Amino acid sequence: MTPALDVPPGLRGVVVADTGIGDVLGAEGTYHYRGRSAVDLARTHSFDEAAALVLDGNLPDDLGAGLRAELAVHRSLPPAVSAVLPQVAGAGARFDALAGLRAALCVLAEADGFEPTWGAAPARRRDDALRVVAVTPTVLAALWRRRQGLDPVAPRDDLHGGAAWLWALHGVEPDPVLAAAVERYLVLTIDHGFNASTFTARVAASAGTDVASAVVAAVGTFVGPLHGGAPDRALEALDEIGTADRIEPYVRAKLAAGDRVMGFGHAVYRTADPRAVMLREVAESIGGPLVELAARTQDRTEALLAEHRPGRELRVNVEFWAGVVMSLAGIPREMFTPTFAVSRVVGWCAHVLEQTRSSTIIRPSARYTGSTSAR
Amino acid sequence: MTPALDVPPGLRGVVVADTGIGDVLGAEGTYHYRGRSAVDLARTHSFDEAAALVLDGNLPDDLGAGLRAELAVHRSLPPAVSAVLPQVAGAGARFDALAGLRAALCVLAEADGFEPTWGAAPARRRDDALRVVAVTPTVLAALWRRRQGLDPVAPRDDLHGGAAWLWALHGVEPDPVLAAAVERYLVLTIDHGFNASTFTARVAASAGTDVASAVVAAVGTFVGPLHGGAPDRALEALDEIGTADRIEPYVRAKLAAGDRVMGFGHAVYRTADPRAVMLREVAESIGGPLVELAARTQDRTEALLAEHRPGRELRVNVEFWAGVVMSLAGIPREMFTPTFAVSRVVGWCAHVLEQTRSSTIIRPSARYTGSTSAR
Repeated sequence: MTPALDVPPGLRGVVVADTGIGDVLGAEGTYHYRGRSAVDLARTHSFDEAAALVLDGNLPDDLGAGLRAELAVHRSLPPAVSAVLPQVAGAGARFDALAGLRAALCVLAEADGFEPTWGAAPARRRDDALRVVAVTPTVLAALWRRRQGLDPVAPRDDLHGGAAWLWALHGVEPDPVLAAAVERYLVLTIDHGFNASTFTARVAASAGTDVASAVVAAVGTFVGPLHGGAPDRALEALDEIGTADRIEPYVRAKLAAGDRVMGFGHAVYRTADPRAVMLREVAESIGGPLVELAARTQDRTEALLAEHRPGRELRVNVEFWAGVVMSLAGIPREMFTPTFAVSRVVGWCAHVLEQTRSSTIIRPSARYTGSTSAR
Repeated sequence: MTPALDVPPGLRGVVVADTGIGDVLGAEGTYHYRGRSAVDLARTHSFDEAAALVLDGNLPDDLGAGLRAELAVHRSLPPAVSAVLPQVAGAGARFDALAGLRAALCVLAEADGFEPTWGAAPARRRDDALRVVAVTPTVLAALWRRRQGLDPVAPRDDLHGGAAWLWALHGVEPDPVLAAAVERYLVLTIDHGFNASTFTARVAASAGTDVASAVVAAVGTFVGPLHGGAPDRALEALDEIGTADRIEPYVRAKLAAGDRVMGFGHAVYRTADPRAVMLREVAESIGGPLVELAARTQDRTEALLAEHRPGRELRVNVEFWAGVVMSLAGIPREMFTPTFAVSRVVGWCAHVLEQTRSSTIIRPSARYTGSTSAR
C-alpha cells in the first residue's frame, strides 16, 4: 500500500504535472505561453497565431495561417450538432450558453466518432482538439441567436478571431477597432496556469477519455462561481455605481459590510493583474463614459482597499476590464463568460494533449473519517 | 507564494480530502459504505436503501421508502430532456449512451434551473442530486430503446432498483431472480473510493458548480479506457475463449505476448476483488454454460497468472463477473458500462454533496519545464 501523504488543502502548491504550455508568475505580475509574454503576444499577434503557439508549441513561420485554415475546415457544424441546438437553446427559463455548449460537444463527439485519447494517434488527438476549438464559437453564437429568435449566421472565410466572433454573434460587418479589442482579449485569456477547470480537463484526460469529454468536464468546473471568470459580475458593479460621485460610498458600504468588491483581488497575482492592465489600455484607446467611470472606479477602489486592508495588495483583476471591453464591443452580457470559453478552450485542449503524453492516471486518496461502529 | 511541493505521480497516496462516505481496504480485500460492508449490504438491502445510506449517511428506519418515493417523483423526464433524446440517440455511427446521458444532463440542468452548489441551500443541493440520480436510468434506457427504433417505456411505480432498470430497458415484466442479481450488482458498485471519476466530480464541485455539471464531468472521466469499469471487455474475452479447452492456450498466448488479460488485476486490491467474489456467487446461483466457462476461466487464469507473475497477486476483478451477471440478466452489451453508471451516479452525487461542505477550491500547481529563451 502507498502510505497516505498529507498536503495543503485544495492541493495548494502541490506539483501535479510538468508543463511546457505556460506559467503564471504571481509575484512578478506576468504570465507567458511557452516562454513568450502573453501580453506582448496580444500586442503583436492574432488569436490564431497565439492558439498555434499554445497548441503546437511554436510560433509558426506562416503566422498561424496553417492553423487558421485547419480551424476554418472544422467550424461549420455537423448536421447532428445543428439539429440539437434549437432544443438546447430553449431548454430553460434562464439562458445558459455554456450548458448548451456542453450538450453540443457531447453530440459532436458521438456524431464525429471522437476516439479515446489513450491509444489514439497523436495526429488524431490533435484533429479532435481542433474540432472542439473550431466549433465552440459557432455553437455558442448559434445558441445565443436561436434564443433571440434569430437564425445562426454562416461563418465567413475572411474573418477570424475577434472579428469572426462578433460576426457569429451579430451577423453584421464588425468594426475593426472593436474586433481588434476582442482579439486582444481572446489572446490574453487562452491559458492561465493550473486553474481548477484546466486541472479538471487533465484529470479526465489522464483516464484516456476523448478530447470533447475532457473539455466538457472542464466547462463544468469553469461555470462554478468559485472558479472566477465572470466578467458580467464586475460590470454589474459598475451599473450599480452609475456615476463617479457614487464610487466612494459604494465601495465603503461594501467594505463596511465585509463584502467582496467584484473585479478586485486574485488568487495568484500579488500585483496588478497584467491582463487587466492591458485591457484598460485597450478600453481607454476606445474611450467613452463607461471607460471613464471604470478607470476612476479602479483607481479609487484600489486606494480604498489599500487603506482598508493594508498589505493585502487587492488590485484590479481581469474580470473588471474584460467586462468593460466586451461591453464596448457590443457583446451581450450573457455572452461574456461564453466569450471567455471561446479562447480558454484552446488552453484546455493544449493541456489535454499534453496530459495524454503521460500514461499515469490522476487518482489521489482520501482519508476515511466517518463511522466505523457498524463495520 | 506557496512553495512547490513534489508528490508521487498521479497524486498516488496524496490525501486530498476527508470523507465519511466509504473506504476501500485493498490489502484486506474489503470496502464499505459509511462503515458498513458493501458486500453485506448487497446481501440484505435494496439499491434504494444502500443509496439512502450513501447519500444521506444513515440507513433509514423506513428501509429506504423515503428516498424511494423521492426518486419516483423525479424519474420521469422533463419535456425539454425528452425532446432532445431522439437527436442524441441517433447522432453517431457507434451508439454511445454515456455521451447521450451527458448531453441530457446538461439540458436537464438548464431546463430545471439547477443552482450552483456554492451558495445553494443544502436541501436544494440534495434535491438536484436526487434528480440526477433518478433520471439517469430513465435517460440511458430511453436512448438505447430509441436507437433500437423503440419508444421509451414509462417508469412503473411498483418497480425499483434492478427490476426498474430491466423494465426500463425491455418493457417486459422482469424475472425476479434476474432482477435480484442486477440489484446486487447495483448495490455493490455505488461507490469505490477516490477513483478518477469521483475525484473529477469533487474538483468540479469544489468550484461551486451545479450537481449536474459535476456529474457530467465525472462521466467524462469514467468513459476513459484507463478508468476501468468496462464489463463488456471481459465478456469479449470469454467469447474469444469459447470453450473450456481453449482457456489455457488463450491465457498463455496473452501472457507470452505481454498483453493484459481483461478482467484480472486491480489498482487497489491485493486479494480477490470482493465484488467479483459476490458476483460469482450470484452468477453460480443462476447457472448455465456461460457461468461454468467463466468459473473455469477465472480459476485457470488466476493459477496461470500466479505461475507467470509470482507475488503480483493478479486476481479476478469486478468487470469479469459483472459482465457475466449482466449478460445472464439480458442486458445488452453496449449497456454494460451505462448500467455501472446507474449505480455509480449515487456515489458521485454523494461526493459532490460532501465536497460542497468545504469552500476550498481544488487547484494544484504545475512546474513549468518548457522553453524560456524567448521570454
